[in-house]
Amino acid sequence: MPLVLPPLVDHHCHGVLRSGPDAAEFASYLTESDAPPASGTSFFDTQLGFAVRRWCPPLLGLEAHCPPERYLERRRELGTTEATRRLLRGGGTGTYLVDTGLPGDLTGPTELAELGGGEARTIVRLEWLAERTADAHTGPEAFVDVYESAVIAAARTAAGFKSIAAYRYGLGLDPEEPSAAEVLRAAARWLQARPPGGRLADPVLLRHLLWSAVRSGLPLQLHTGFGDPDLCLDRCDPLLLTDFIRAVGPYGCPLVLLHGYPYHRHAAYLAHVFPHVYADVGLALSHTGARAEAVLAEALELTPFGKLLYSSDAYGLPELYVVGAHVFEEALGRLIDVWTASGAWSAYDAQRVAQLIAAGNARRLYRLEPTGS
Amino acid sequence: MPLVLPPLVDHHCHGVLRSGPDAAEFASYLTESDAPPASGTSFFDTQLGFAVRRWCPPLLGLEAHCPPERYLERRRELGTTEATRRLLRGGGTGTYLVDTGLPGDLTGPTELAELGGGEARTIVRLEWLAERTADAHTGPEAFVDVYESAVIAAARTAAGFKSIAAYRYGLGLDPEEPSAAEVLRAAARWLQARPPGGRLADPVLLRHLLWSAVRSGLPLQLHTGFGDPDLCLDRCDPLLLTDFIRAVGPYGCPLVLLHGYPYHRHAAYLAHVFPHVYADVGLALSHTGARAEAVLAEALELTPFGKLLYSSDAYGLPELYVVGAHVFEEALGRLIDVWTASGAWSAYDAQRVAQLIAAGNARRLYRLEPTGS
Amino acid sequence: MPLVLPPLVDHHCHGVLRSGPDAAEFASYLTESDAPPASGTSFFDTQLGFAVRRWCPPLLGLEAHCPPERYLERRRELGTTEATRRLLRGGGTGTYLVDTGLPGDLTGPTELAELGGGEARTIVRLEWLAERTADAHTGPEAFVDVYESAVIAAARTAAGFKSIAAYRYGLGLDPEEPSAAEVLRAAARWLQARPPGGRLADPVLLRHLLWSAVRSGLPLQLHTGFGDPDLCLDRCDPLLLTDFIRAVGPYGCPLVLLHGYPYHRHAAYLAHVFPHVYADVGLALSHTGARAEAVLAEALELTPFGKLLYSSDAYGLPELYVVGAHVFEEALGRLIDVWTASGAWSAYDAQRVAQLIAAGNARRLYRLEPTGS
Repeated sequence: MPLVLPPLVDHHCHGVLRSGPDAAEFASYLTESDAPPASGTSFFDTQLGFAVRRWCPPLLGLEAHCPPERYLERRRELGTTEATRRLLRGGGTGTYLVDTGLPGDLTGPTELAELGGGEARTIVRLEWLAERTADAHTGPEAFVDVYESAVIAAARTAAGFKSIAAYRYGLGLDPEEPSAAEVLRAAARWLQARPPGGRLADPVLLRHLLWSAVRSGLPLQLHTGFGDPDLCLDRCDPLLLTDFIRAVGPYGCPLVLLHGYPYHRHAAYLAHVFPHVYADVGLALSHTGARAEAVLAEALELTPFGKLLYSSDAYGLPELYVVGAHVFEEALGRLIDVWTASGAWSAYDAQRVAQLIAAGNARRLYRLEPTGS
Repeated sequence: MPLVLPPLVDHHCHGVLRSGPDAAEFASYLTESDAPPASGTSFFDTQLGFAVRRWCPPLLGLEAHCPPERYLERRRELGTTEATRRLLRGGGTGTYLVDTGLPGDLTGPTELAELGGGEARTIVRLEWLAERTADAHTGPEAFVDVYESAVIAAARTAAGFKSIAAYRYGLGLDPEEPSAAEVLRAAARWLQARPPGGRLADPVLLRHLLWSAVRSGLPLQLHTGFGDPDLCLDRCDPLLLTDFIRAVGPYGCPLVLLHGYPYHRHAAYLAHVFPHVYADVGLALSHTGARAEAVLAEALELTPFGKLLYSSDAYGLPELYVVGAHVFEEALGRLIDVWTASGAWSAYDAQRVAQLIAAGNARRLYRLEPTGS
Repeated sequence: MPLVLPPLVDHHCHGVLRSGPDAAEFASYLTESDAPPASGTSFFDTQLGFAVRRWCPPLLGLEAHCPPERYLERRRELGTTEATRRLLRGGGTGTYLVDTGLPGDLTGPTELAELGGGEARTIVRLEWLAERTADAHTGPEAFVDVYESAVIAAARTAAGFKSIAAYRYGLGLDPEEPSAAEVLRAAARWLQARPPGGRLADPVLLRHLLWSAVRSGLPLQLHTGFGDPDLCLDRCDPLLLTDFIRAVGPYGCPLVLLHGYPYHRHAAYLAHVFPHVYADVGLALSHTGARAEAVLAEALELTPFGKLLYSSDAYGLPELYVVGAHVFEEALGRLIDVWTASGAWSAYDAQRVAQLIAAGNARRLYRLEPTGS
């Protein structure tokens, strides 16, 4: 059965570089490592590297799997803007929900959507919002007040919030909302010790940020599972969120567990048993490339079909949008071929579920306007 | 190779509803969630929901994958008893080992076996036995004495015992048997604080229950892995039982690790290295539906072939017996096709191992009479 | 595409028995259990047992999958030496890196390589080296001095070191190097309490051993994941090494995470984000047999292709060399067939990566001489 998908809603992604990158910088976006490759190895020799070499060269007029050097040369010939345009438009994404809290000279949501020929909304990263607040305001009372206003203002236009507490502390935070006094004391401690531009890693403040989003009612995205070596993977198991999920239940705030890998079956379980929990496998599909079908299949064991979302988690390189979309579509298409061929799923349901995962679930969850309206 | 299986021994299952259910109640048995589905989603949109729609409508004279409403309408036309009869007899199960400790107006073991045209034995749930004892007796001495007699009486006719300590506390219990004095003190505390019908969740008493079963010598089934949101999944990793397994070793009591998912590879490891440990993947196959082949394959990596057991963990709906049996048989049949086609397994061994998992291992472990005797 | 592999470099293996074994001893090498099989079961009824019966009988002139008794009879007819010669030479291994720290009347590295027609180097097991030092020297100062000299001497000829701290304590050791005073105190305690031949399980000394290897600069192999029931599997999750990996980073010592199963995706993540971490899936492929393709595929999700190594972890039976090599080659061949057929990998890259995993990565990491030189 040829799978017919609507334009994808990429519910978790980032801007791409406005210029460059050179060869080493390009390669650095192909890995979660923050160090140079081991002697004798290359970041292109990974599932993600091979996936980039498969899907991207043809969009720039080259043969799939041409050598990385040839590809980068062609990219330079075209210039960053033109290469970005061609790549984004070759990916099949129609809506971008952009987490704007990452550093670098990156396209903003509107710029990205214009280059890609789609629509964009913003996802506000809570730690970024708090750190920018702390940059501009001294004193814990001012910090707390201005942050609260900033969250309320952001909630008026943003599609959702995002937390990287997994990176800053791990997911084993005390699940309860901290009291106003605790927050003030923690803010005073943090602001006093903070070097210029310093990161927020205080667990009381991280909890305060999470609960500020919960009270907004907008969907709250939570990083879970693998990422760069800043995190400790075993502190990013989404099951560590179990008590927080229970505590949040009465507030009606949807929680979206991002990535999850290699704990994506744990995330799927949480989405299965808690009505307000959703899951995605964004980053995991791009990085596992030829294995994306297996990883997506594992996520589809327990996740209710109305609660799995597509994302690319693309960052820096438009190539990551291409890979995210193509790897997802191919993986989903194959699973559906196998499951309909065996009779396990009907063709009608398969088509319906594919559209939910590709776009429908995100449209419902983030209350996006219908396409074309 | 056409796989020829004997009638299945379902070594862990429950009664089915004597009447109803209505549409919402039916759907509630398709999920481990205890809440209504998220807005815009349906419990039928899951691997288990699709598996029910695949296997059950044809047994009631409908097309596979017909809409849920049509199926439920047909079920009402036939009436609960006739639908149950047709479904149970379409499943291929010959022997039911029924855990009778679940609430609801459910068929008992004999009634279930008569409807299904098979044989039944009872599995006694330890927590249920202790709670019923506490309902009828006041005072810790009486509770302890009557519970002990009840276990001894149950062991005369039951096929085995079952513990849901995973739900009540988690599997990280102190592995050692509590002393008589500790048990009395814990019983006094629990009975005094207990509301009518209250659950047993005291860790000392849970250990006492486990050890009462160990001393009986009958196989002891332990819930491990996923289940409803009453449990914390990370406290249900069967590896948490490692020290208990070691402590039990000298007593000759077989331990059967139920479900295990998503920790089924951990359960398989324990069955691999400890002679008195067995494993099943009951609940996991039904809930993962189209993915059951992959989950069963993972369980068959380390579990010795003489130590994996079939179960459905069916509860409430006869449909879950149908799905359990068909999903298992299809998954096993496909694995065996692949493994014999590649030469990894011989056809003779494949047939032999399939019969062990379907019935032989359970017959040996629970000392069931040979069929037809 | 027919996969063309160079002679394998087996970077982690052990000697084989110089005589015997009888039937029960043979079977005992097919399992990680240290007890007799459960009543009514056989260690041949496992994925490893079936893999032995598939690959080994043809090398001794019998039909694949002939009954175990027939195979063992043929083995006795040939005699241990001749059977060993035929089996080793049928495996395709060219270079053996032999961990010599296991008990039994086993072939040494040179003897093994001569029987197998290949080359051998030694991997020195740290705990074995320390225990032999303690056998010969009394007093903590002498122990510490002689052990240090022994490590320095070993580093001149060995290809690498190996630690089984996972077995002796678990991987959750304090990551930092203990001070000289701490080591002396721990050595005094251990030596005083030690029965003749007693094992080293003191966590301070285990850390001292690890850091002695780190300071040598040679690759350090670490047991992670499953093994015999001496270990607690949940203490062998390679993620427990995260802080040790970070602490070791500046020293330039490569860490090789062995086996990993069922945490091989965790090991792959560590190899992905830390430049000095490598991974293998040795023991896991042999024991999962018909499932080796799936396990290898999981390891190849995040492990950079320049950082995965082949090993058999063979011990006692030459059959385990045969199974290790054939199961690996078949699994890798099939993955590559699937991934090139779909266009995910190019044929050229597939061939190149296969050669890296089979031999090239180990040659680079252990600085082995080029073949034929």
